[in-house]
Amino acid sequence: MGKGFPEVGAEAFAAGHPLRRCRGFIFDVDGVLCRGDEAIPGSPEAIDRLRRGGKKVAFISNNSTKSQEEYVAKFIKLGIPVTADDLVLSTYATARHVSKEKPGARVYMIGAPGLRKELQLAGLQLVDDPLEAEYVVTGSPFDGTGRIREDNVERITGALRALYHRNARFIATNPDRVFPAEEGVIPGTGAMIGCLSYMIDRSPDAVIGKPSEHIVRIALDRLELQPEDCVIVGDMDTDMLAGEKLGMTRVFVRSGAMTEEKLQSLGITPDFAFDAVIDMLTAEGD
Amino acid sequence: MGKGFPEVGAEAFAAGHPLRRCRGFIFDVDGVLCRGDEAIPGSPEAIDRLRRGGKKVAFISNNSTKSQEEYVAKFIKLGIPVTADDLVLSTYATARHVSKEKPGARVYMIGAPGLRKELQLAGLQLVDDPLEAEYVVTGSPFDGTGRIREDNVERITGALRALYHRNARFIATNPDRVFPAEEGVIPGTGAMIGCLSYMIDRSPDAVIGKPSEHIVRIALDRLELQPEDCVIVGDMDTDMLAGEKLGMTRVFVRSGAMTEEKLQSLGITPDFAFDAVIDMLTAEGD
Repeated sequence: MGKGFPEVGAEAFAAGHPLRRCRGFIFDVDGVLCRGDEAIPGSPEAIDRLRRGGKKVAFISNNSTKSQEEYVAKFIKLGIPVTADDLVLSTYATARHVSKEKPGARVYMIGAPGLRKELQLAGLQLVDDPLEAEYVVTGSPFDGTGRIREDNVERITGALRALYHRNARFIATNPDRVFPAEEGVIPGTGAMIGCLSYMIDRSPDAVIGKPSEHIVRIALDRLELQPEDCVIVGDMDTDMLAGEKLGMTRVFVRSGAMTEEKLQSLGITPDFAFDAVIDMLTAEGD
Repeated sequence: MGKGFPEVGAEAFAAGHPLRRCRGFIFDVDGVLCRGDEAIPGSPEAIDRLRRGGKKVAFISNNSTKSQEEYVAKFIKLGIPVTADDLVLSTYATARHVSKEKPGARVYMIGAPGLRKELQLAGLQLVDDPLEAEYVVTGSPFDGTGRIREDNVERITGALRALYHRNARFIATNPDRVFPAEEGVIPGTGAMIGCLSYMIDRSPDAVIGKPSEHIVRIALDRLELQPEDCVIVGDMDTDMLAGEKLGMTRVFVRSGAMTEEKLQSLGITPDFAFDAVIDMLTAEGD
């Protein structure tokens, strides 16, 4: 941060920059581009510069409550112009995963309206009777204050019945354990993975969000690029792990929730580390 | 069943009966004495006969929603006279366990009014602010139809905060995964063990109900008897496992949810097996 742009015309990276050869950049959102609704300084400029330099850019998030259309508004506020096509949320990625496995499948869901919307947009058939379900898709039944949503108070039991009595396939949007909120942490979607897995004594058939590679693979499909031509940029172990599984170049930024020391203590060594995304364009990393 | 009582006067068991030396009998309830609200034929007579023969009798159940006073009504319907002192439910046993560890402790609970009542009767201090809690006690937030109780919609998050931010001790009433109900299974308390354990990445400090020995030990204390002088009578692996941990004589009855073949397939061999509790008094078992 605070470093000037090198004068390189249309190129995003200066000659000799190790990321210059990379064609696609997949960014995690919170802790990388923003903190809450506030842009991390330089991140809108970094995205703009990559795009002007002919790089393909996509944004991925484990957010399991919003549709892609809803999430666009967040980017507009940050000053990063996007369309829904630039985003891959775990809501969308989950819907796409299920519809690819079984187009038009009957799905019983736990979660927010944004997840419901993406499942519908993917042509899946949402059912309210668990005994009709072929799939259970679980996002989070909790609202932003940690209350169970009114339309979800029967859905843990519904999901259980679909799994227990119908052996429905079990798909979770993401494995996050908890999220920070004003008055303390609130449960992540992982709460439902733990809850349902314990009751039926089996793990989900797929978990779509990071550190799973599913969500990243969908972003790569969108970019029409191979993983080895792409960079994943994140602030968490989960970002680095997902990128590693696919053989992508891994860039860690220190602007988010995890320190580099913590990352190292988990045995993860990214290919590059920067203070913030803007520095990726100006420095060589360390 | 259908076998006549031997004529032995005040003795509960005929001379030479292998259980004659046993002084206390601890019975599981559902599948042993009753199915739902209906007595299993002969079970009231068996209890009466044991009592008249000078045996001490107690009843244990993993039920985590009712207070002991509330549960007395069930026994009256079955034709088995009891007072709350004859019962050890996981609600009561949990309250006693916590109050023994820390008298008057501040407890944040998930669960039904019956659990709340037992915690209060044990002199524990129920708090609504999770950040004041020294203990999290979890029963089930679900009602009998599988809906989250209205007064529990914020309590999963509350329990999480007490555990996450205050490192509260984590006690669960019982580990049951699911319960049968009319329209399909409903979640057991195990749902909360799975949910909270996943989020905080640690297991409960204690689980009180069977197969844990905690609940049985409390019944033994009530009877003022040593485990080696007592019989546990149950229809499930969990009953036999709890009895085994304590060195009790284990009697399996075939009147409940689990077949003897299933029990054997789990590697559990009870000391005796009968079709129903009444047969324990008339046959020698096989």
